[in-house]
Amino acid sequence: MSKPTPISGFPEWTPGQRMIEQFVLDKIRNTFELYGFAPLETRSVEPLDQLLRKGETSKEVYVIRRLHADAEGSGGDDQLGLHFDLTVPFARYVLENAGKLTFPFRRYQIQKVWRGERPQEGRYREFVQADIDIVDRDTLAPHHEGEMPLVIGDALRALPIPPVTIQVNNRKIWEGFFRGIGVTDPEAALRTVDKLDKIGPAKVAELLAETAGASEAQAKACLSLAEISAPDPSFADAVRALGVSDPLLDEGIDELVGVVQTAAEHAPGLCVADLRIARGLDYYTGTVYETQLRGYERFGSICSGGRYDNLASAGATSYPGVGISIGVTRLLGLLFGAGELSVSRSVPTCVLVALADEEHRPASGRIASALRRRGIATEVSPSAAKFGKQIRYAERRGIPYVWFPGADGAPDEVKDIRSGEQVTADAEEWAPPRQDLKPAIG
Amino acid sequence: MSKPTPISGFPEWTPGQRMIEQFVLDKIRNTFELYGFAPLETRSVEPLDQLLRKGETSKEVYVIRRLHADAEGSGGDDQLGLHFDLTVPFARYVLENAGKLTFPFRRYQIQKVWRGERPQEGRYREFVQADIDIVDRDTLAPHHEGEMPLVIGDALRALPIPPVTIQVNNRKIWEGFFRGIGVTDPEAALRTVDKLDKIGPAKVAELLAETAGASEAQAKACLSLAEISAPDPSFADAVRALGVSDPLLDEGIDELVGVVQTAAEHAPGLCVADLRIARGLDYYTGTVYETQLRGYERFGSICSGGRYDNLASAGATSYPGVGISIGVTRLLGLLFGAGELSVSRSVPTCVLVALADEEHRPASGRIASALRRRGIATEVSPSAAKFGKQIRYAERRGIPYVWFPGADGAPDEVKDIRSGEQVTADAEEWAPPRQDLKPAIG
Repeated sequence: MSKPTPISGFPEWTPGQRMIEQFVLDKIRNTFELYGFAPLETRSVEPLDQLLRKGETSKEVYVIRRLHADAEGSGGDDQLGLHFDLTVPFARYVLENAGKLTFPFRRYQIQKVWRGERPQEGRYREFVQADIDIVDRDTLAPHHEGEMPLVIGDALRALPIPPVTIQVNNRKIWEGFFRGIGVTDPEAALRTVDKLDKIGPAKVAELLAETAGASEAQAKACLSLAEISAPDPSFADAVRALGVSDPLLDEGIDELVGVVQTAAEHAPGLCVADLRIARGLDYYTGTVYETQLRGYERFGSICSGGRYDNLASAGATSYPGVGISIGVTRLLGLLFGAGELSVSRSVPTCVLVALADEEHRPASGRIASALRRRGIATEVSPSAAKFGKQIRYAERRGIPYVWFPGADGAPDEVKDIRSGEQVTADAEEWAPPRQDLKPAIG
Repeated sequence: MSKPTPISGFPEWTPGQRMIEQFVLDKIRNTFELYGFAPLETRSVEPLDQLLRKGETSKEVYVIRRLHADAEGSGGDDQLGLHFDLTVPFARYVLENAGKLTFPFRRYQIQKVWRGERPQEGRYREFVQADIDIVDRDTLAPHHEGEMPLVIGDALRALPIPPVTIQVNNRKIWEGFFRGIGVTDPEAALRTVDKLDKIGPAKVAELLAETAGASEAQAKACLSLAEISAPDPSFADAVRALGVSDPLLDEGIDELVGVVQTAAEHAPGLCVADLRIARGLDYYTGTVYETQLRGYERFGSICSGGRYDNLASAGATSYPGVGISIGVTRLLGLLFGAGELSVSRSVPTCVLVALADEEHRPASGRIASALRRRGIATEVSPSAAKFGKQIRYAERRGIPYVWFPGADGAPDEVKDIRSGEQVTADAEEWAPPRQDLKPAIG
């Protein structure tokens, strides 16, 4: 068998990196649960027509097919694809189970998603997202839009990563502004403004004229709005100073002031009102979020989302929602790539029980069982090699302690192989210092 | 949009059931780590030729294809499929990363897998498996085969599920026995014996003659061997009493005695030597495991595995291993289907902070933050409805406590809405009884 090779876009972490990922996912999950979000997992597949409702991403979808079905020539109507995010499946889940759910429904969902995009640093074809959403029936109170940054702020600040800034905006501001200045194709205009960071103001102005029919003055007004940014409600004055008037614009300003104020009270410096944030996806209708990781801004947002009013509806009932999604694999991929984040050992094991000879394996096994019963991760040496070799087994994995069963009635001893210190110990009583019990991540 | 419907074979649990699943996965993971298994996740896809190495399952594989690739007419050589188990990807991972790993390499892996089989109760097209494996370079000591049932026994006995019995056998016993009695096609014979539970002894005898060329006496001997079962090493005497002699048979008996003795010392009654257990997959070469859940035997094994010597090799180097896999979705599907397993509330929330009016939302938010900082999952009421309605919000979700912020300098009060008891409380100090902090599962 020839040596297998990696598949571009489908990352695999080492066991040590996987420990870090689990640590990160545990922290995120814990924060989500502290805010009362209930866990949910949806199946990995959706009917293809569901996945393609969201126009732009159609090219990124992976379709699946039973190999066996080839011969039968089946497929077609009931084609399935792997989900490319967790929002579309969640909206489908809400519609399917609306009768059994209680609203507002708060759920979190941490799962893999797949996109057939061209892989590059921080961008994968298979990756983990960690989402929260709140969905209500018919109407959703705006204060939920203010809650999202608090949860994300708590979740990310609990991690050993650089500080983050959540950039917030409100779609109503742009829509109202476009209306106020008379731009006739607001969707095209918004998609153009969204490209500001990539192509710069001159090119945006040009495109606004070309694709959205904007005059020079209109384009200039749009660029002025996009330049506004503030960590507090003062952004509202700057918007109003542009002299554009529209009821939807006012509504958007009020909502964004609420989000920024709530965040500032909870965690000063966490949120910035940044009027250039638009989010490409056209289902957002209110607040939108992006998140910059300090030092990694060039890779784009690591946590994004927004309010959506029209993603799920059945007959006269609609289910407006707001959600935000942490790009866990992107976050870790960037930090791993930069050599950030480390773990103190490559295995969970805290103690290796040494073995004088194979006949004593059951005795060493009993010591291991006693330690495990008390929550101490323990292995028995795989072979009765010389003790020096057994100690090297532990060393190579970063296992901090080697346990030597006492021979002929002598007491057991345990050695900290980092310091060389060795003490007598009883497996029913000994415990490592707290910081050694689990692998340390930092 | 029409109401979406479930997709057969792709189960979705309710948030309450997902809480139970997470509880189960956390317990399993904790046990795996106590035994020093390091976590690993492999990508969900493998090259199709890798997946098809294992003959029999080819028809179950899902292939994936970028929708966009359709137009380009690509595919073919680099076709990818979703993995159908975690053993084949793990063997590939070991080969790919052998230079970076330390052996023996102990890893656990908890992931979804996909099989295009016909769905039925306890059998899904998308499901979660929880695997442990130990792989060494060139040789793998047999004591590792004895360790598997200890880990699985500890993991499953930590769960609120019916008791399990792990049935163990050793492929060498059958191979040596076939050789000893002169059966010429041992592989065909073993596949036939594996059907004993499904088709009965008469039909097995018939098939042994037809497909493996066995004489009547040989078939009878096979059935006698298959009938042997014992919770202790006494099975060895019963095998020897059949009067068949072969070195491989003796080796298999010795190894199985070792596995049964190790298990009996650790957890009496956990393991049974059951000579009819064969496991369909032809890559096993030593100990094989199946696991029966009491009361659910008719659905087959919920945890299976075995030793494999030939799954991974590169040049002259081979990587023999032993592994076992808990069918988590099957286990939960059966128990959920039977109405077993429940959770005390449908959300993680322990406390709902009530809201006198919207102006007081920031004050209620501060109380919630204080409780969360102390690890108490808390929501603020979504609306300033009448307190009765806010209490019903908590009731419908099983949230045990409602917190009433004190008005005009009065102290806060917290109400246990099950008992109606209401006491004054300080968010910086109050804590619920331990059993109320998290949803209780049983």
